Amino acid sequence: MASPEIEALTQALSRLPGLGPRSARRAVLHLIKKREVALVPLLRALEQVSERLSTCGTCGNVDTTDPCGICADPRRDSRSLCVVEEVADLWALERSHLFPGRFHVLGGRLSALEGVRPEDLAIDRLVSRIAAGGIDEVVLAMNATLEGQTTAHYIADRLEGYPIRLTQLAHGLPVGGELDYLDEGTLAQALRARRPVA
Amino acid sequence: MASPEIEALTQALSRLPGLGPRSARRAVLHLIKKREVALVPLLRALEQVSERLSTCGTCGNVDTTDPCGICADPRRDSRSLCVVEEVADLWALERSHLFPGRFHVLGGRLSALEGVRPEDLAIDRLVSRIAAGGIDEVVLAMNATLEGQTTAHYIADRLEGYPIRLTQLAHGLPVGGELDYLDEGTLAQALRARRPVA
Repeated sequence: MASPEIEALTQALSRLPGLGPRSARRAVLHLIKKREVALVPLLRALEQVSERLSTCGTCGNVDTTDPCGICADPRRDSRSLCVVEEVADLWALERSHLFPGRFHVLGGRLSALEGVRPEDLAIDRLVSRIAAGGIDEVVLAMNATLEGQTTAHYIADRLEGYPIRLTQLAHGLPVGGELDYLDEGTLAQALRARRPVA
Repeated sequence: MASPEIEALTQALSRLPGLGPRSARRAVLHLIKKREVALVPLLRALEQVSERLSTCGTCGNVDTTDPCGICADPRRDSRSLCVVEEVADLWALERSHLFPGRFHVLGGRLSALEGVRPEDLAIDRLVSRIAAGGIDEVVLAMNATLEGQTTAHYIADRLEGYPIRLTQLAHGLPVGGELDYLDEGTLAQALRARRPVA
């Protein structure tokens, strides 16, 4: 039997999303075999993240500073706010370098199945930010899932009456998408949102 | 953009077998969100493994002691030696509680493609253990892959002339295997190794 230390590490790794018990075991073996190039860097990186990172009290992003680099950056357009479900979505949008404004991370999505209610998400804090003024546009960038869209609808309701432009990401064909391979939902969205040829 | 600490952790995780850049990113987010139940236990487990584990100088197993718990256990049959490719294979056999003897971990398999030669594996050390005497049976428990079987053949050649019984794991139908779904190689092995009905 493997030692308790190895069992503990296997368990801790197998709780990560995307790693089952079997792949966790392989990962542990890899870490042990490649101690200097795999285990030590992972240990150092975890220590750094554990010691230095915190959640931005304004937007919910994770960074070494609070407020985070995005909230503190004077070059970002403070009049434009993009609402996302998770920090990962914020990172995805940042990688595209396309959104010049600031963010608001909800910390999840409404889900009857998983028992996630509005008070479990940072929705009240979003309403406060908008009520405080200075924001012209709010972009709802929820996932194109049933739960993401339910969340978007709920937030749209909550923001009614505020003097803002409320938008959401376009739905339609993904880049490179072939009609023959796309699901009917996407095709229906793309057809419903069709635009005149420029 | 995510902070350098996050990028470093994502990189370190994405080098684990079974985790690509995308799933590493999801894992990092999970670790940050579930700091107390995910990040801290993983950090502690890695520290323990990093501080306490070493490779057994006798068999190549990984344990907190050297010689390892298996080599040091007087209840194990020291006359019976099972040769495996990796520590993970040793663990798999130990989980089955079926082998009462001791082990020898090669640290890999011969591979022309990956440039792994006999001197890269613990084969000389295996020969020394057997030359030292006291071992009656050597079980070759290589994987049923081309490279595993090449390694087994090579070791069998090297051990010729020593007064031992050299055996290897049986090949054939796996438990629950349905003929219709099995590859031809397995079927051929199972047919070639057919036995009289008891």
